[in-house]
Amino acid sequence: MAQREHVKVEYKVKVFDIGAGLPIIVLNEVEARQRDLFMGDRVEIEYKDKRMSAIVDTSTTLVREGEVGAFIEIVDALKCAPGDKVTILPLGKPASIDYIKKKLDGGELRPSEIEEIIKDLMGNKLSEAELAVFVAAVYSRGINAEETVSLTNAIMRSGDTLEFNVSPVVDKHCVGGVAGNRTTMVVVPILAAAGAYFPKTSSRAITSASGTADTMETLCNVNFTKDEVREIVLKTHGCIVWGGGAHLAPADDKLIRIRYPFRLDPRGMLLASIMAKKKAVGSKYLVIDIPIGRGSKFEDPGRAKDLAKDFIDIGSRLDIKTQVFLTDGSDPIGYGVGPALECRDVLEVLQGRGPQDLFNKSCLLAGSLLEMSSLARKGEGYNMAMGIIKSGKALDKLREIVEAQGGSPNLRIDDLPIGKYKAEIYADADGRVDYISNSNISRIARAAGAPKVKGAGCVLKCEHGDRIRKGEVIFEIYSDSEAKLDYALKVAEEVKPVELQKIVLGEFDRNAF
Amino acid sequence: MAQREHVKVEYKVKVFDIGAGLPIIVLNEVEARQRDLFMGDRVEIEYKDKRMSAIVDTSTTLVREGEVGAFIEIVDALKCAPGDKVTILPLGKPASIDYIKKKLDGGELRPSEIEEIIKDLMGNKLSEAELAVFVAAVYSRGINAEETVSLTNAIMRSGDTLEFNVSPVVDKHCVGGVAGNRTTMVVVPILAAAGAYFPKTSSRAITSASGTADTMETLCNVNFTKDEVREIVLKTHGCIVWGGGAHLAPADDKLIRIRYPFRLDPRGMLLASIMAKKKAVGSKYLVIDIPIGRGSKFEDPGRAKDLAKDFIDIGSRLDIKTQVFLTDGSDPIGYGVGPALECRDVLEVLQGRGPQDLFNKSCLLAGSLLEMSSLARKGEGYNMAMGIIKSGKALDKLREIVEAQGGSPNLRIDDLPIGKYKAEIYADADGRVDYISNSNISRIARAAGAPKVKGAGCVLKCEHGDRIRKGEVIFEIYSDSEAKLDYALKVAEEVKPVELQKIVLGEFDRNAF
Repeated sequence: MAQREHVKVEYKVKVFDIGAGLPIIVLNEVEARQRDLFMGDRVEIEYKDKRMSAIVDTSTTLVREGEVGAFIEIVDALKCAPGDKVTILPLGKPASIDYIKKKLDGGELRPSEIEEIIKDLMGNKLSEAELAVFVAAVYSRGINAEETVSLTNAIMRSGDTLEFNVSPVVDKHCVGGVAGNRTTMVVVPILAAAGAYFPKTSSRAITSASGTADTMETLCNVNFTKDEVREIVLKTHGCIVWGGGAHLAPADDKLIRIRYPFRLDPRGMLLASIMAKKKAVGSKYLVIDIPIGRGSKFEDPGRAKDLAKDFIDIGSRLDIKTQVFLTDGSDPIGYGVGPALECRDVLEVLQGRGPQDLFNKSCLLAGSLLEMSSLARKGEGYNMAMGIIKSGKALDKLREIVEAQGGSPNLRIDDLPIGKYKAEIYADADGRVDYISNSNISRIARAAGAPKVKGAGCVLKCEHGDRIRKGEVIFEIYSDSEAKLDYALKVAEEVKPVELQKIVLGEFDRNAF
Repeated sequence: MAQREHVKVEYKVKVFDIGAGLPIIVLNEVEARQRDLFMGDRVEIEYKDKRMSAIVDTSTTLVREGEVGAFIEIVDALKCAPGDKVTILPLGKPASIDYIKKKLDGGELRPSEIEEIIKDLMGNKLSEAELAVFVAAVYSRGINAEETVSLTNAIMRSGDTLEFNVSPVVDKHCVGGVAGNRTTMVVVPILAAAGAYFPKTSSRAITSASGTADTMETLCNVNFTKDEVREIVLKTHGCIVWGGGAHLAPADDKLIRIRYPFRLDPRGMLLASIMAKKKAVGSKYLVIDIPIGRGSKFEDPGRAKDLAKDFIDIGSRLDIKTQVFLTDGSDPIGYGVGPALECRDVLEVLQGRGPQDLFNKSCLLAGSLLEMSSLARKGEGYNMAMGIIKSGKALDKLREIVEAQGGSPNLRIDDLPIGKYKAEIYADADGRVDYISNSNISRIARAAGAPKVKGAGCVLKCEHGDRIRKGEVIFEIYSDSEAKLDYALKVAEEVKPVELQKIVLGEFDRNAF
């Protein structure tokens, strides 16, 4: 590439009164070309004593020669106004573009190179197209264990970190995809009651009906700063807060946005995202839940097993002792789907009642953490977890945590804000329940208003293997308005989440091919 | 992926008075999430009897719930105004996104799949990020010969095509990178004078000091419609027009823009781009010039040879007989660099004088086409081409073509608009000229105003191998203003395009490592 002359040129500001999400300036295309400036090039823009780097866009219509179009990001940072004179100096491309290209060429990235990419991501120095190519490159070429560790550290360093001088600090994670799977709210109080420290950060729903943070929010605030999180955990041994609030590993949120259009989930990036969040809160013992089976994120158990191996490997490189469970994710867990309805299941389980699958799975995960962190002897974790529930200590601990997070410690099921409007869905034939679609039951719950409407969602009245009769209630829908309930009913008619067992699974004759 | 409900929702229009380049709407992020709509999703937007598809962007600040932000593309197409009520219906993703993903996964794309991607590219249905992933996928996974042929056909069908019922239709192409390499303006009149039909479309400069279209434009108009091109070629046997004007293979221009930030040039895409333009004008015989060597696009001769093989293979699949020359591209061709200065070289060569390298190379390429199209016997093409120049027939033919393109047929060198301001650059040492940098001499010519200022540029006063003395003029710079000339001089001091032979090529001692 030819060298660039280092000459500043003056332009008159034209303000576009809208945010571009990135610091973008618009130059006249013909004029820009004269100056060797093209779409995607970087410049430094200077006004009075302020300067910042920006990405060039070009247009033949929006700006005339001698003008520079500035979006709100630029105007706010430079405090310039329409007609002001600014100077623009061409800059080289950020080095991270070369590193992205290197990965696309199949090269191995050094820690400093990965660090630079994440730094530029956080500094809004890379365009959406450039970041999309980064994700595509990692997806297509893969990253090895060293690179994954580097990416984990870079994502972790993109935000704040929590430090505790206590032990053991434990954590759990579920890769998601299963409706109603609220084990966190049972596991955290069990471990905290047993003496571990559990600084749990959780996500909100993206495509599901509720994330753990949404469910916890029916009881108390979940939005805390890093220092508040630290205080709550040191006081109560646990917390369940929204990860997005504490500025922990924020690069991850940006990467998720980019991965969305193609649903690309490069394995190394998934690993790094998750481990970065664990590392940022100082976890030393980690249990991971990978639900597998029809309709889950991992229909192929082989892929899930490979991921499990990688988790354990990367965990050990990061000094986080990790245990992974592949669990049955082909049906929802618990009865409720939606924030308050799931919360009801959790409170039932903590009182030794409620859905057996949620109870068992929670004790399994909690038991594993108890053993890993030497709070229980080998083989005794599960029973110890069960004992902590039965004794009421887990429920008491949740009261304590909820109170520390600003909620009422009563935790009365009758106080939960369940939607006032309810509809029942009936079986349209006799048969045995063969499959309940996670994604479709979530769709219906979302149509009813979840997760925004805390009391909206579905309650399953049957589970896998149940023999049901035509006309029996198979699930209920709750909402806070008749309109939303009607809408959810329409969606339910369309997607039919509960399937009965079939004998003939496919029918073919010679015309079928 | 869960099914989408087919429910239209009403929004109030908020107008953003700026073009986005794509049909983009902005929804409130919280509200969009409620409706399962995310950045990059597609919707149909409807106002009165008009509807169009659009890409969703989300924002927490730009629009409130119930509002939709519309850029100029949307407002113009729907003829809606601020406050108007429009309805929005979620649509599935374009199928081409799945095909792009398939390529990223290493799959082979079917002709219909490639066609769909190019159709969506032309219809502005793919975001910049999605297109960047397409280019990255082709770069990373490659495309085979069948896919390259499909891509060629798809790019060709993205615009108009020219059909001639005449023969032979010949063409040439240079992959570029060499300053002053204006063989086209010599080869076209030779072939046209010999009876071939030569519908030549050329590009304008992107990063160089002049493209063939820029150089031809010093003599006449180069912007013609497809029908005008056809008429000129049928009348004079040749033309030299700007490819962008005739709506031939326009998808290529869009793909080039996307490739720019990473300088990605996936081989299959390069092949398809070039061959699509040739196919669109009905060429049957094609000669390709791949300059190689230091500072050219192909420093590695092996890569150039592979590309040559591919050109011949794809050409034969497309029924275009193709011959490829790897030529010395390590120094500029001719003396002039810049539109009018290059044009002067061309007119000199057509009078049997001027730079020998431009003369020889033009005869070589023309001779090959004369032989391929059976206008010359094997082994006699070069001499025939030379004879056509010496007889004055080639110059007469160029006069005819220039006149048909609306210019004056005089073609007097003294009429060329050479810049009035001139500076001389002197050798600062004795020595033998070892290297003249294509990119740096172009940089200086651009700094002087080329290609916009037709008479701006450089004239080389030495060539590779010349022995020169300190203080001798090694090149001149021309411009139309003192300011630009000063600027070009500054650039010249910085980049020093002419290198003298060195004996010591590197010096190391134990401290160097």
